[in-house]
Amino acid sequence: METISTKAYGTEAAEAPLDQLGIERRKPTAHDVEIDILFCGVCHSDVHTARNEWPGTLYPCVPGHEIVGKIVSVGGHVSKFKVGDVVGVGCMVDSCRECQYCNEGLEQYCEPGMTGTYNAPDKHLNTHTFGGYSERIVVDENFVLSIPDNLDLAAAAPLLCAGITTYSPLKHWNVGPGQKVGVVGIGGLGHMGIKIAKAMGAEVVAFTTSESKFAEAKRLGADEVVLSKDKEQMAAYRGKLHFILDAVSAEHDINAYISLLRVDGSLALVGAPEQPLPVAAFSLITGRKSFAGSMIGGIAETQEMLDFCGEHNITADIEMIDVQQINEAYDRMVKGDVKYRFVIDMASLKEEK
Amino acid sequence: METISTKAYGTEAAEAPLDQLGIERRKPTAHDVEIDILFCGVCHSDVHTARNEWPGTLYPCVPGHEIVGKIVSVGGHVSKFKVGDVVGVGCMVDSCRECQYCNEGLEQYCEPGMTGTYNAPDKHLNTHTFGGYSERIVVDENFVLSIPDNLDLAAAAPLLCAGITTYSPLKHWNVGPGQKVGVVGIGGLGHMGIKIAKAMGAEVVAFTTSESKFAEAKRLGADEVVLSKDKEQMAAYRGKLHFILDAVSAEHDINAYISLLRVDGSLALVGAPEQPLPVAAFSLITGRKSFAGSMIGGIAETQEMLDFCGEHNITADIEMIDVQQINEAYDRMVKGDVKYRFVIDMASLKEEK
Repeated sequence: METISTKAYGTEAAEAPLDQLGIERRKPTAHDVEIDILFCGVCHSDVHTARNEWPGTLYPCVPGHEIVGKIVSVGGHVSKFKVGDVVGVGCMVDSCRECQYCNEGLEQYCEPGMTGTYNAPDKHLNTHTFGGYSERIVVDENFVLSIPDNLDLAAAAPLLCAGITTYSPLKHWNVGPGQKVGVVGIGGLGHMGIKIAKAMGAEVVAFTTSESKFAEAKRLGADEVVLSKDKEQMAAYRGKLHFILDAVSAEHDINAYISLLRVDGSLALVGAPEQPLPVAAFSLITGRKSFAGSMIGGIAETQEMLDFCGEHNITADIEMIDVQQINEAYDRMVKGDVKYRFVIDMASLKEEK
Repeated sequence: METISTKAYGTEAAEAPLDQLGIERRKPTAHDVEIDILFCGVCHSDVHTARNEWPGTLYPCVPGHEIVGKIVSVGGHVSKFKVGDVVGVGCMVDSCRECQYCNEGLEQYCEPGMTGTYNAPDKHLNTHTFGGYSERIVVDENFVLSIPDNLDLAAAAPLLCAGITTYSPLKHWNVGPGQKVGVVGIGGLGHMGIKIAKAMGAEVVAFTTSESKFAEAKRLGADEVVLSKDKEQMAAYRGKLHFILDAVSAEHDINAYISLLRVDGSLALVGAPEQPLPVAAFSLITGRKSFAGSMIGGIAETQEMLDFCGEHNITADIEMIDVQQINEAYDRMVKGDVKYRFVIDMASLKEEK
């Protein structure tokens, strides 16, 4: 199969910093589009994968699954896109397309397993997939999204993961007007959660461990902010919330949040704490409550989210970096020192020799 | 307020055995019915409360909330029942009847709190409520249920708690034909769960830690039985179950069961393990799964369950005892040595001097 030599940024080992390296992309086949990458958001999964913190990283590893770019060529049977279109690619570049879940538009839960944008077996080349920290990417048109015209392209990049990760559960659990919805953790995911829940018409209560984030949370759209370590503030919301979006990846007391749910309320985890979270049976039983999880969203739903964000003029709050700053950005992100998402200006890679 | 001296069986302290004692019941007020108790099932909650294993037992303690009896007198405004009717009383004898949850028929989740059949503040007398281990009980007609004619009265008693505890979540999570439903734990609750899930049209997979229960589980209606400690048997059900009813009160590996759920599946806990259960974030996230809980059911739903059981001729498998055997029965129940519910023949109390 013919390939295109492509500049990328990645790492050869868990301990090694990211640096420029060369990868091969397939030449677009009949249903592929070739995308010149303009911006790529930096997600916590990128760090976990690059550093092999989730077991199973394949090296060399090129992270990045919040990709926005422009189509520069299309395969002979591409019908959804044309050269010049501004498009996005999120966490998946393929799935089996045949299983019950794929048929229901839940490609993220594909039974044999979706093809991740990076670190997954490549169906075309004898290697694994490489992500968006690169000049270009070649993707089947069915896994490519349209970016609404009115959105800032750099700030739209994080919608492809952080946006859909928060939109999908808010939608699935029917968040809307008349509801009080909690968002726990104001970071890359949480800040999107606040914006989207607010745009869906809910009354948003943000929970943070730091008083310093109160003003920020309100600026992002929260109607109320609660200091989660203050027992009195927490107690005031006991049994009051219809739904909670929990975007915390660190260990935290889930039962304290479950107690804030109304009867039949759900708390959906979108962060992924490493250690199991102890859940008290009584906190669930005494109100028919659910402790749930949710992972990104399907392709059609991702397009729906992008259109929703276009309509409500929602993007991420970002800090733009050059690709050469990625190692420093990783370290800052691990410390929570970013408001709220790093996005790589891919021009910096193209200009590098 | 006028009262009726009533023989009961209960205990004066956590460490004391149950014995005969005298209590006062109110004379029926306008909306009350007075019930001559024929049978009372023995629930694990009875043991926990009598022995103060859940904090907050008020002594003297008279347990029992699986009550079947015959109406012997009715208050002046009673419209739903008449003298001679065979009726049941479950876990609640009152609720605020005004909050949003009561208005939705979810009296079990009453916001100010339902009035438990025992160990709750009595709204009429200056004491706490006394349960069904007694000759008679006086209950507001709105918390009294009709027992279908065709059911064996002793074997119907456990429906009032074990029946509704399993019926309600099976109904709430829409269990029905075309679904594979797991029931974990084959005891007082679990054996009802198997019967009811089967009658609802689901394919029932029973999980047990003991191979000796395989034949029993099938007799109760399970289509398949899985030895939960056998990893291979468990793996065969990975991602296969639409819903799991978890009736285990001991510590157990929740993640092993969550992994058996399909995408969007829920596991509902109806047992109440003492220690918090560690739940791995990934087990929920990777399939939008829910770990939920459920507690008994509302009054209308309890009647619906009784009618359903009448229609499908479902009762509990019971072992009948005299009230004088209750202490021995408690000890046996704690060891899991009962198939599957003890029911007290209340004639034994009436005959006691």
